Amino acid sequence: MRQRKVKNVEERLAEYADYIIEGTSLIKGKWKDSFGNDNKIFLELGCGKGQFIVAKAKANKEFNYIGAEGQQTVILRALEKASRELTINTRFMTGFINDVTDIFEEDELSGIFLNFSDPWPKDRHAKRRLTHKNFLEGYKKVSKAGSKLEIKTDNEELFEFTLRQIETMGLEIVELTRNLHLSECTSKNVTTEYEDKFKASGKKIQFVKVILK
Amino acid sequence: MRQRKVKNVEERLAEYADYIIEGTSLIKGKWKDSFGNDNKIFLELGCGKGQFIVAKAKANKEFNYIGAEGQQTVILRALEKASRELTINTRFMTGFINDVTDIFEEDELSGIFLNFSDPWPKDRHAKRRLTHKNFLEGYKKVSKAGSKLEIKTDNEELFEFTLRQIETMGLEIVELTRNLHLSECTSKNVTTEYEDKFKASGKKIQFVKVILK
Repeated sequence: MRQRKVKNVEERLAEYADYIIEGTSLIKGKWKDSFGNDNKIFLELGCGKGQFIVAKAKANKEFNYIGAEGQQTVILRALEKASRELTINTRFMTGFINDVTDIFEEDELSGIFLNFSDPWPKDRHAKRRLTHKNFLEGYKKVSKAGSKLEIKTDNEELFEFTLRQIETMGLEIVELTRNLHLSECTSKNVTTEYEDKFKASGKKIQFVKVILK
Repeated sequence: MRQRKVKNVEERLAEYADYIIEGTSLIKGKWKDSFGNDNKIFLELGCGKGQFIVAKAKANKEFNYIGAEGQQTVILRALEKASRELTINTRFMTGFINDVTDIFEEDELSGIFLNFSDPWPKDRHAKRRLTHKNFLEGYKKVSKAGSKLEIKTDNEELFEFTLRQIETMGLEIVELTRNLHLSECTSKNVTTEYEDKFKASGKKIQFVKVILK
């Protein structure tokens, strides 16, 4: 995503210190303490400006949500949104995640969302795709039994790749659609910023939900 | 389905002669003449009492619909319904279909629906399941390019079997859900009589839609 230059990012991020989790290896296994309750914890990897995660958090106050986003200027928007909406059941992590098992203990999560992840179109970058089986294995480890992984993308190649990885892993598909907004599956769908744009332009969104373990 | 005895079935069926297609081998390749137009033709194999097919026909007057049902006392209800609702874009076939290629010419159909087909639970009856690959091959033959096959069932074993057959055939899944009425996919769903009962009792309905060719 191309971003306009944002001034004083560091300072402005500091205003939302309560929402930001840093030194993430220290928090492994201790996320419930950060939220101050035992509620289920869901993760969105690549939360962008936070529309999806904040809407989820508002709609499901009985659950906790973590948004991770590598770009500081982008996550700032998510923090502003979460703060404005007073979603105390959200936390945000800046920085790219290479291995979720560095940050989460086994069984610590109850579900993971991947929305419009970078497709990394070149073959030699396949391992960077967040649906590569190496990543899927990590998601599986840090998730409780019965947890689901939900993936949305506008990129057909990434979707096909993802389905192949899911098959390799033997994960059970519980929902799949190759055209989310033209299918019957729209009423309860929570959208991202990207998705709203794609939807408006009539671009197809692919969606798949699998049982991680 | 267990049925109450219905009196004078033959006579009563005769009242709906305009809707009934018999001597089906004679009509192969001539379905458009029966409808009197060139509109797309969809088939429901096992239409039961006709709730689904009649609702589809009412909602899509630009398309033609054929309901096939082996049990005369059951199809009588479908005929009564179609006649009452004046769905002139419906036709019904009595009798069990062993091979769709006996009844339809290549490319004659634009889509097929299988709703709550008999699961034939015994292994030795697997070939009787309407989603057995032998049937899928027939459906493929009689359908135009881009046609879809939609399958709904409450039977998990039949659903798993169906997914394996779909995989064997290399058919592309465009939609799949293991819980149609608890998923986001409900608004445009047209239900059958069975489905309404299952829904009311909270039973899971599985759904899959594939591209036939």
